[in-house]
Amino acid sequence: MIELYDLVGANDLRFSPFCSRTKAVLRYKNLPYTTETVRFTEKHKLTFSGQDRVPVIRHDDGTVVSDSWTIACDLEERQTEPRIFPGLGHKEACHFFNLYVDNTVHPALAPVVVGDIFDKIEPGDRDYFRQSRESRFGARLEDIAARRDEFRPQLQKALADLNATLAGQEYLFGVFSYADICLFGTFTWVTRVSDEPLFDNAPDLRAWWERMQERFTV
Amino acid sequence: MIELYDLVGANDLRFSPFCSRTKAVLRYKNLPYTTETVRFTEKHKLTFSGQDRVPVIRHDDGTVVSDSWTIACDLEERQTEPRIFPGLGHKEACHFFNLYVDNTVHPALAPVVVGDIFDKIEPGDRDYFRQSRESRFGARLEDIAARRDEFRPQLQKALADLNATLAGQEYLFGVFSYADICLFGTFTWVTRVSDEPLFDNAPDLRAWWERMQERFTV
Repeated sequence: MIELYDLVGANDLRFSPFCSRTKAVLRYKNLPYTTETVRFTEKHKLTFSGQDRVPVIRHDDGTVVSDSWTIACDLEERQTEPRIFPGLGHKEACHFFNLYVDNTVHPALAPVVVGDIFDKIEPGDRDYFRQSRESRFGARLEDIAARRDEFRPQLQKALADLNATLAGQEYLFGVFSYADICLFGTFTWVTRVSDEPLFDNAPDLRAWWERMQERFTV
Repeated sequence: MIELYDLVGANDLRFSPFCSRTKAVLRYKNLPYTTETVRFTEKHKLTFSGQDRVPVIRHDDGTVVSDSWTIACDLEERQTEPRIFPGLGHKEACHFFNLYVDNTVHPALAPVVVGDIFDKIEPGDRDYFRQSRESRFGARLEDIAARRDEFRPQLQKALADLNATLAGQEYLFGVFSYADICLFGTFTWVTRVSDEPLFDNAPDLRAWWERMQERFTV
């Protein structure tokens, strides 16, 4: 059985968008797995993988794979059906979409929800979280949270593009693919740590999110 | 023969990214066309299309189509081969990519190059250009141009994602598609109006751009 190293917050809350993507791939492909929890302050548990970020999976044969995109490609190769790259060019289009979500959508989301995340993680992990995030944002968490309204327009723009993409179709690329799993992981993260209303101006995105939740709970 | 209404600047410079996309589709599909030039202050030439933006095409049968994305879909339907949506899900993936380029890449490019464009358009069109762009940016063109260095990091981020997408592959989605035409139109625009170095930190993007230029000059 595949072993997945999965980020955990307070009360066993699983909120890593990247781990959610890996779990969604595993479920979609009907691959059984167990999880080993990793708190922000337990990075030493990942030393065997040669790097310090979740997700990491270990196969039965001992092979270790890290990084959610690399894991997705690895699982598609080992267990082809059902496919997360369903046709010609889908692996490449999904790779671009993954970069877009991580480098355009996440930076638009992070300043809006980062204050909420702080409350959801174990008290013992909060110093680590504060230090790493304040260094990333160049500002105190409380100051970022207080400016939430300033950051919302950028987020609304990204959500508007995703909503426009989904108008009149069931999945981001028409047919189900890793693009859907990728964004599903991101929204799993946000909706678990924050009450930020994401879908008020994005009805097609909301309908997609509801369909994705029916399909996967990870 | 198809008639294309094409934006024109000083010295017959054709620099609309959206018109370049339409021309690239027409050339790719070997569809003969003529152009009718439209200056910024000649929007009245487009009245017949029921809206005021280029590109607009008129088919032999009198059908009028506007908006570069709508035109691409129309041409793909009328003249299927060679395809700009080469497989399952490509139309949808290209639609998303088009939104990304227009709403993420263009806003990152525009403040860096807008000062350069001003010099490339007919003196008689400059008042229109200044008014419309200063209203869009909420600042004077000269003030935006003076802050060019501030806007470059955001542009570099977008170029880095495109470069990463193209690493080790020939086209954005692996196989040639409208995604390539869409970005080609954007770079045609920028390189015609500006000397801004786009590819210094993006070797794979540069190689793609060179291949695209060999393929199309529009």
